[in-house]
Amino acid sequence: MNTNILEDIFTPEDLRQLPAERLQEVSAALRKFIIDIVATKEGHLGASLGVVELTIALHYAFNTPKDLLVWDVGHQAYGHKILTGRRLQFHTNRRLNGISGFPKREESEYDTFGVGHSSTAISAALGMAIASNLKGDLDKHHIAVVGDASIASGMAFEGLNHAGVTKANLLVILNDNAIGIDPSVGALKQYLTKARVGYKPEQSNIIEALNFKYFGPVDGHDIGGLLEVFEQMKQIRGPKFLHVITTKGKGLKRAEEDQVKYHAPGKFKPETGELLTYDTAGLPLKYQDVFGLTLVELAKKNEKIIGITPAMPTGSSLKFMMQAFPERAFDVGIAEQHAVTLSAGMATQDFVVFCAIYSTFLQRAYDQVIHDVALQKLPVIFCLDRAGLVGEDGATHHGVFDIAYLRCIPNLIIATPSNETELRNLLYTAQLGIELPLAIRYPRGRGIQKVWETPFEEVAIGKANCLQEGDDLVVLSIGNMVYNANKAIEKIENKSIGHYDMRFVKPLDEEVLHTIFKKYKYVVTIEDGVVTGGFGSAVTEFAAKHDYKAKIRSLGVPDEFIQQGKIKELQEIAKINVEYIEEVIVSLLQNL
Amino acid sequence: MNTNILEDIFTPEDLRQLPAERLQEVSAALRKFIIDIVATKEGHLGASLGVVELTIALHYAFNTPKDLLVWDVGHQAYGHKILTGRRLQFHTNRRLNGISGFPKREESEYDTFGVGHSSTAISAALGMAIASNLKGDLDKHHIAVVGDASIASGMAFEGLNHAGVTKANLLVILNDNAIGIDPSVGALKQYLTKARVGYKPEQSNIIEALNFKYFGPVDGHDIGGLLEVFEQMKQIRGPKFLHVITTKGKGLKRAEEDQVKYHAPGKFKPETGELLTYDTAGLPLKYQDVFGLTLVELAKKNEKIIGITPAMPTGSSLKFMMQAFPERAFDVGIAEQHAVTLSAGMATQDFVVFCAIYSTFLQRAYDQVIHDVALQKLPVIFCLDRAGLVGEDGATHHGVFDIAYLRCIPNLIIATPSNETELRNLLYTAQLGIELPLAIRYPRGRGIQKVWETPFEEVAIGKANCLQEGDDLVVLSIGNMVYNANKAIEKIENKSIGHYDMRFVKPLDEEVLHTIFKKYKYVVTIEDGVVTGGFGSAVTEFAAKHDYKAKIRSLGVPDEFIQQGKIKELQEIAKINVEYIEEVIVSLLQNL
Repeated sequence: MNTNILEDIFTPEDLRQLPAERLQEVSAALRKFIIDIVATKEGHLGASLGVVELTIALHYAFNTPKDLLVWDVGHQAYGHKILTGRRLQFHTNRRLNGISGFPKREESEYDTFGVGHSSTAISAALGMAIASNLKGDLDKHHIAVVGDASIASGMAFEGLNHAGVTKANLLVILNDNAIGIDPSVGALKQYLTKARVGYKPEQSNIIEALNFKYFGPVDGHDIGGLLEVFEQMKQIRGPKFLHVITTKGKGLKRAEEDQVKYHAPGKFKPETGELLTYDTAGLPLKYQDVFGLTLVELAKKNEKIIGITPAMPTGSSLKFMMQAFPERAFDVGIAEQHAVTLSAGMATQDFVVFCAIYSTFLQRAYDQVIHDVALQKLPVIFCLDRAGLVGEDGATHHGVFDIAYLRCIPNLIIATPSNETELRNLLYTAQLGIELPLAIRYPRGRGIQKVWETPFEEVAIGKANCLQEGDDLVVLSIGNMVYNANKAIEKIENKSIGHYDMRFVKPLDEEVLHTIFKKYKYVVTIEDGVVTGGFGSAVTEFAAKHDYKAKIRSLGVPDEFIQQGKIKELQEIAKINVEYIEEVIVSLLQNL
Repeated sequence: MNTNILEDIFTPEDLRQLPAERLQEVSAALRKFIIDIVATKEGHLGASLGVVELTIALHYAFNTPKDLLVWDVGHQAYGHKILTGRRLQFHTNRRLNGISGFPKREESEYDTFGVGHSSTAISAALGMAIASNLKGDLDKHHIAVVGDASIASGMAFEGLNHAGVTKANLLVILNDNAIGIDPSVGALKQYLTKARVGYKPEQSNIIEALNFKYFGPVDGHDIGGLLEVFEQMKQIRGPKFLHVITTKGKGLKRAEEDQVKYHAPGKFKPETGELLTYDTAGLPLKYQDVFGLTLVELAKKNEKIIGITPAMPTGSSLKFMMQAFPERAFDVGIAEQHAVTLSAGMATQDFVVFCAIYSTFLQRAYDQVIHDVALQKLPVIFCLDRAGLVGEDGATHHGVFDIAYLRCIPNLIIATPSNETELRNLLYTAQLGIELPLAIRYPRGRGIQKVWETPFEEVAIGKANCLQEGDDLVVLSIGNMVYNANKAIEKIENKSIGHYDMRFVKPLDEEVLHTIFKKYKYVVTIEDGVVTGGFGSAVTEFAAKHDYKAKIRSLGVPDEFIQQGKIKELQEIAKINVEYIEEVIVSLLQNL
């Protein structure tokens, strides 16, 4: 018997051996454990603190892993991970070769479905529940825990709409803390808020109208109350819905008070929650802030400018525009599909719409980019933050597919700024009026310039930038790989290496490419997206079409899902780091 | 003054000059006009017949094109096209260089937003409405006409959820005929059906809960009633919702009685609706039926097989499975995102899930394919019907992007059967158990074999098929381009041409490719998808990686949106027709 009750719990089976009276003790220990580790190792804090009691109650009341539990998004699943065999590994959370920051099937049998992007849990759990019915396993429970921001996404609605006409033994738990990463928005959220404060007549109606048995709202921090309602609900077959009210950041005062900041606060003092500041003076600005602040600067002069974000005002820094021009900046919630087509609708009325979406989330609106924007040549500007390898969020969040999936779309311009000035000039150029849609992809994190507020210059669409002429070999790079390529080239002596920042994946600068392929025998392309079908592939297609015989080496993310870790570590794994680039160049030039 | 009132109407302005009493006469004439033309020229019938009165009432009550009208999907917009300046062109509907079967911005100022895929209208109209507010144009109306199948899609919900917290002057009209292409499904549909028959307490609640002013339900065939409610609603600012009950196929008895068949009935006798049959004896089966019937055949022996379709039981022929094994086949409605993640959920429980989605509609579930299926290596089988050029449906519906957008996804196998036997064998092989997800893409329309019910043989994943050895040049083809390539090669005499059906875009048969590139100086690749990033690009990447110097020509759909027309006509435009393939081969061989 340990003094810390958590140390006796290795699996939910251990938890279930405890008398219910001791669960409060478990929750205090679990909350402290999460705070202590995240304080020093970083990660997502607020969401997991908010569901400590819910997590314990679920694993206590249900027979996991036989009963199947799906966490939506997964930011809130730290407690779940700790109680399901990963307490001793938890300090490796989000690190290279450590455990993932999200539930992941290959990590544990308790992680029934890998998550990361929002609103998938209802569909996945429903699939499991229908499967159990077909197997005749009628007593099995299938539980989806969904946040109030996620449940307003179209995909969640599709799951509810289907579940309501099945006999699936599905329990949807709405974890309603009134906030996603930023505060929740939308009509459904307003409706749920009314339910929270007890407007009885309306309380359960939307959910019951969709044929779910509705329970709640209940206090998500009252373990006893949760256990009671779970026992009740376990007796009922078919689709059920429990509305649980929780407080994000629960138990750490500062986290409760500033829920946006404490979503993923970085390092802090575990006792007080006080954030550990570090000196950022002299560091370049984050790309997202260059975007957000530049947009405000442009919007001051161009009243046609509109900004749209699906649920990422803070992450994308569109918050600056929302503060400066609230009537021209919109957070539409977790609704990427709607965000893109809404942008298209506004563009038909001659507004200049900047639609800010993380690269990985634009995957959610792929059809809308093709069908509603590109096909109609509507000049929407997609600002794709977090393009390339994103680091600790890992495989679900890397923005590495965008070049390949966007490059095949007719009419779409794809720009890849290599520094803050390039990004600013692209934003400036876009609002001057381009006749076609434009995607601008830029990486997560800080830029590379000391001064970011450079004067605006118009960018020539589709024109590459020759950084350095050479004779022996040429490097064609894009985006943040321009920096890596520069570093690699600097290290190589006694060779004459050309280097072009291609700036645009589409249209390619064919004039420059003709010059290049006529001159060089060795061409190296570098991108921080998948090589399969990416920028290097575009250059290779060009060379084949024109029968150029240069030896081409395309560096980029290989054809596999890349795990989590520091971006530098992942660049090494993906073989787009400075050292590998150098190695490739040197090896090619040995043939000379 | 013409005897037919329709002949006096060239624009809605003309319509609005008429006294309301004459609108019934217009509706009779318009209905007859649609029936007469579609009877001989083919097209979508039922949806447009169902909204004849609604169309007239809308253009009469609202000041189009200043007031902005968005038709969702657009199958129902024939009446709209005829009343807005395109009566005399209507016989060219869906033909090459004719008018599009869907609203299209470049065709008319009355077509405010291009459509084709479902559930985009609310987002687009909301974008326009917010734009009008920003311009201070507060009296402008913005109307989205949405069917009951489309409104159950997640994207429509996202639009409603956002609209409800705006002051946008948006009118959503639910055209509730209880059917999309197939009968509507889902909990929302059941709820709406209750409203139709007047369960007062529940009637308006979901919609009002989302902050819309709700009106209805009203009879959509009563022009007077519609005009009355429109006048009422025009006085109200902000988001409004009108529930209109219509009958699909209204006014043609047979079309009302068999709404699925008369969605797009082919040729028929205009007086009676009697379908003109033509002799199909001896014609190959449609690929969709080979899929549908084979799945039933396999499901008889393998009880783990499940079939899922998002709203296309008839079009995909999953209806056969739904009839034979109703408990193992699911129409989930227009919910591609949910369909894919539901499949993933079932796959975690060891079911063999065939998810049948048109190629163009898989664009709607792109993120789910990456994030929920491929990342987790869940062996879902995607059956991508209507891959390649689809003909008369045109630019919105061609399934030409799939190879490019799927090829960059790790873990995913992409198969391209070139005939019915290949398709059957792939389906057979898939259910034997592959450890990875598999996409099988096959074209719209009929196959090429006299006998389709060939005995099953297991397919070796990733293995190409050498159809013919050669010396001078080799053709690498996939899918239905194997047929075109064969025809082209047959026409060329005195040359030794090799031909491989590559069968898999991913994994490529690298062993065979090494042999090929060591042997041949000329390689021609052919696909009916976009060349940018497609199959030819994969072959080119391979050649570059291994420093092969063969001259490669990649034929495929060029980097532009292809309009509507017969598939043969479009193949000529895309330069993947027999004659062009022959021309390319001959021209390359002239160098010999």
